[in-house]
Formats: sequence, C-alpha cells, structure tokens
Amino acid sequence: MNIDWLQKPARPINGDWYVDAKFKQDHLTKPVRSLGRLEEIAIKMSALHGCARPSVDKIQMVVFAADHGIAAENIAAFAPMTTLEMMRNFSAGGAAISVLAKELGADVEVINTGTLTAHENLQSVIVERIAAGTKNFTQQAAMTAAECAEALNIGQQAVLRAKGNQADIFIAGEMGVANSLSATAIVCACLNESAQAIMGGNSELNETELQSCVAAIKQALQRHQTQLDSPLSILQTVGGFEIAAMTGAYIACAQRGLPILVDGFVASAAALLAIKILPATRQWMLFSQVSADLGHQQIIQAMKAKPLLNLDIRLGEGSGAAVAVSIIRLACRLHTKMAVFS
Amino acid sequence: MNIDWLQKPARPINGDWYVDAKFKQDHLTKPVRSLGRLEEIAIKMSALHGCARPSVDKIQMVVFAADHGIAAENIAAFAPMTTLEMMRNFSAGGAAISVLAKELGADVEVINTGTLTAHENLQSVIVERIAAGTKNFTQQAAMTAAECAEALNIGQQAVLRAKGNQADIFIAGEMGVANSLSATAIVCACLNESAQAIMGGNSELNETELQSCVAAIKQALQRHQTQLDSPLSILQTVGGFEIAAMTGAYIACAQRGLPILVDGFVASAAALLAIKILPATRQWMLFSQVSADLGHQQIIQAMKAKPLLNLDIRLGEGSGAAVAVSIIRLACRLHTKMAVFS
Repeated sequence: MNIDWLQKPARPINGDWYVDAKFKQDHLTKPVRSLGRLEEIAIKMSALHGCARPSVDKIQMVVFAADHGIAAENIAAFAPMTTLEMMRNFSAGGAAISVLAKELGADVEVINTGTLTAHENLQSVIVERIAAGTKNFTQQAAMTAAECAEALNIGQQAVLRAKGNQADIFIAGEMGVANSLSATAIVCACLNESAQAIMGGNSELNETELQSCVAAIKQALQRHQTQLDSPLSILQTVGGFEIAAMTGAYIACAQRGLPILVDGFVASAAALLAIKILPATRQWMLFSQVSADLGHQQIIQAMKAKPLLNLDIRLGEGSGAAVAVSIIRLACRLHTKMAVFS
Repeated sequence: MNIDWLQKPARPINGDWYVDAKFKQDHLTKPVRSLGRLEEIAIKMSALHGCARPSVDKIQMVVFAADHGIAAENIAAFAPMTTLEMMRNFSAGGAAISVLAKELGADVEVINTGTLTAHENLQSVIVERIAAGTKNFTQQAAMTAAECAEALNIGQQAVLRAKGNQADIFIAGEMGVANSLSATAIVCACLNESAQAIMGGNSELNETELQSCVAAIKQALQRHQTQLDSPLSILQTVGGFEIAAMTGAYIACAQRGLPILVDGFVASAAALLAIKILPATRQWMLFSQVSADLGHQQIIQAMKAKPLLNLDIRLGEGSGAAVAVSIIRLACRLHTKMAVFS
C-alpha cells in the first residue's frame, strides 16, 4: 500500500496574515492584548485560513476506533468489547462526543479501523476494518507495514472528505480499549523516556495497576528496541490502527491546509508522530487541552504546545477538543465582528 | 435608600442534588471522572438549579458602566470619555461583549450607573445615572452612603429582571475607566494587602505607571484607614457605582437562587465584597477565569475559587465569563444528554 504521500510538503503559511491579523487585533475596540490568548488564536486561524475574517462554522470531527492486542494483558480498565459498545453509543448519539457535536453543530464521522469483532450496520459508522485489532505488542509488532500504511491512508481519506465538505477545522478523536498503553509506548519511544516517567502519577490507576502497565511497556520497548528507530516503525511496532489513522490525518491536514485541533493524550501521541514524520505539521496544529497526568504534560512540552484548557478531561473521543473548539469559534467571531477604534 | 434586603439569607441549596448528580455522572457512558472539571460544573449546576437536567440556555448578562473620580489623577490608560464611547459601542453591537452575547444567544443589558456626562438615547442602554461619576477617592470618599445604596439597589433590580426572564445564569460585566484602581483598593482593604502586593507584576503597566498607581492607592488607603472597617464602608469609600451594583447583584442572585458566573479582576473584587457581606453568596458562584496578574490570583485564592479558564483575558465587560459560559453550557448538556451504562 502506497504511502509516498507522507513525503509531500505541508502547505506553506503566508506570514503576512499574522502581521495583518495582529494589526487588526491592536485596533479593535479594547485595550491592546486585553483578550489575551483569544487574540493569539484568532491571529493563528487568520493565518492558517489565509483570510482576514476566519471562522470556525464548519467543524469536522472524526472518531477513529480500534481494538488493541495489548488489551489481552488484562491491564486495561475496560473489556475489549467496550470499544464496540461505544461505537454503538456513538451511532445512537449517547456518547460524550455525540452530545458535544450536536450542540456545536459539528459533523461527526465514526470510522471502525479494526475492532476485535465485526458488527451490524451502524448509522454514521464507516467500516474500514483493517484487522481484528492489532497484535499484542508485548509479544510481536502491533501491525504489519501494510496494515500501518492502510491505517495512515484511512486518516488521509478522512481529511480529503473533510476538505470536500469545506471544513474549517479538523478534530480527530479516538476510541480503543487499552490505547493509552499504545500511546504511552509511542511517547516513551519518541521522547526516549521510561514508562515510569510517562505513566507515573496517573491518577486513574492504583499502584498495582500502574506497575503492571509500566512492566508491560518496559518489556515491549526492550523486545522491540532495534525496531524503534523511526516514527513509522514506532507506529507500526507499538501503535494502534486508530493512532496511525490520526497520524495520517494530521499530516494530510497540513498538506491540504486544514487547521488541526489536537485532543488529549492519545491524540497528542499521534500528533507527536506526525510532527516527527513531517515537522511542518506542527504549524497547522492548535492544542485543546492538557490533563494533570505527567505524561500528557511532557508530550505537550515536547511539542512546545500551549493548550487552551486544563480541565482534566481524559475521556478521548475528541471530547476535550470539542469543548475547546467553542473557544476558538468565539475568538474568531470577536476578530471578525468587533468594531475598530476610529 | 433602603438596603435592608442585604440582610436576607441566601437561598439554601439542597445537598441531595449534589449526591444525585454525582451518582448520575458516575453512570454516564464514560470512565468515572474522565470528564474532569466538566463533571464538577454539571453537578454544581444541578444542585444550584435543584434540577436533574440543568441547562444554561438562557444567559443573562448585565454590563454596569460608570466613571471614576480617580481617573482625574491621569494614571489610567484611557480618557474618561472612553466609558461613554464604549457604551455607544455596546449599543451598536461592536464591543467584545456584544459579539459574544450574539454568538451565545444571550440577553445583554447595559446600565449606565454614573458616567461623567449624560448622553443621547442609546438602544438597549438603561440609564440609572446616580451621579457624574464617583468622587476621587484619593481626596474623599468615592460615594455617599445614599449613592452606594442606590448602586446596590440597581444591581438587585437587574437580578429581579433576570429572574423574571427565567435566566439560568447571571453574568455581571463592567465598564469604567480607572475601575481597576478602585478594585485594587477594595482588594487591598479586604485582604489587608499593600497596593504593591496586588498590582506588582501587572504586565499592562510600565514601572512609572505602576508606581503612580501604587502611590495613589496607598495614599487613599492611609487617608481613609479608619473608614475601611466593613465591606459596605470599603465599597462606599473606594468603590465605584458599577462595582457596588455588581456587589448588590451577586447578593441578590444568592438570595433569589440564580447561579452567578464571576468574570475578571474587577468583578472578582465585587464578588469578594458580596461574600464578605453575605458569606453564603459564595455557594452560588462559579468562576470563569484568572489572568496572569498577581492581584487576580490572590483574590481568586482568597475566595478558594477554581476558575475554568486561564487565557489571560483582562478586558472586563463580562467577556471572560461570556467565553467560559459556553463550557458550562456544554457541561450541562453532557450531563443531561449522555447515555447511561446499562
């Protein structure tokens, strides 16, 4: 499967828009800089959209779902079947992201990139099931190179559809039992940190659970140490289908000129990989939130990101980004609609 | 002018609602606590509304405007006429709060509680002009007791109208050149801090401006030290009409059972006074934001508040609260509309 498109450059951003938008902000009817970060966001959106009147009317959310072989280690809080149950919940409108999307008037796609079992037809769920979950990466590589490529391409295709729908911003969400373990392994490999350093202080786990997780990831990193020498091989070896799809989506966003709003820890792991594969992807990213978890904070720091929110949202699904996008929308509206001092 | 109503108790909150709402949150289709602060907010709104399905559909914003005698010291960034110009801007829909209110579908009242000069009829501006601005509190008390009472009553009346309109949440904003000096003096008197401790590190002022402001407030606090022995006398001596109106509004909200969303530094000074006058007012408050300013951080700490945002918004007008209210609205929607694990 062809992934040559990963080599294509990101769309360049015309720096004049930053200057023009900053000038406009400084002449709106308010003291200079008094809207703080809202000004920065509006300026960035103006530059990314290449437009004096940026807006976030059309929000495209895509939730990538998949199961993970490492869930067989029984160290995740939920049974693997939960991934599929949650997809039914997305489809029925009962999940957090469904509620948020409806409230924001956003478009949501749910893509099954590889659940353990197949399922009945589900409304608004696209089935692109690569395999019955990834392999257990404590034992072997999570994916084959072909599977990884397929997942990257699923992400790219989602972005092409979003561009076709005239989306103003792209939010990737994820659902996959045990995917925080995969994300942790990715972050450890990318930042050359220990599992303890990334997972330590995780308030959702008790000490026994934490040590089981740390041991599993440590074992995996040791087993695969010679394979973890490039972002693509890290992704293939310890990643997940949904994480690979998000990585591909982020790169495609940068190439097609679609602003990205990154969600929580798992999405940030995908963002980190995307930046390692195509560094200019970073310029197309805004960051929604950071949680109290040490690992999330480290990854945010590594990307030199300034997340908008710190509300300790750890759900995934794109839920933190969905909350933060309402602030970006307001920031753009202020930029566009406020009067100018005369 | 009668302010006996300040003595009335706050509406009690039935603690059972906290328990019921927490139980519901723990059974929504998500890992327990994974929505972080959004869960806390929804639980609080459920308890304040005494309702299993809280919503923030109807937002009442009231912007209280006034001029300040201390502006004559020429240490404010804008000329006093700016207060009136901004009221014209509110009326014409060009101010930040106008744009935000329109986007959120919120109702906005602008109340002139005492500009320096009178003005033509302005659409959606209510004129309740107590005097041509307060007196310069470096020289004399900012208000008479009767003026202060009148301002408190203006705030109460705004809340009675909001209750009549079935508001779900109340946001008080303010506009008044030099009112951050008045707010600083209030905070110094309430927390027994020096002007330097509250204003130091204010990034909007250069060192010369900062020292002029600190000197003016120090002088005022010394001149009036024997009068600063109660929250009402602090308000009358170094406050402003719009700050007194906000203080009255907050107390009236607590008495009538209307949740309050506190905005930035000036609003927080009014909130601090309201809590000192009627401590149970605190229970009816949510806090929208904190800025990088030391003084704002101290006042937030003194109220044991956990603001939702830290985006360095310093505009006033209620703008930070208007941004934060979109998050409270989403938190309530999640609480009400998400599916429950079966």
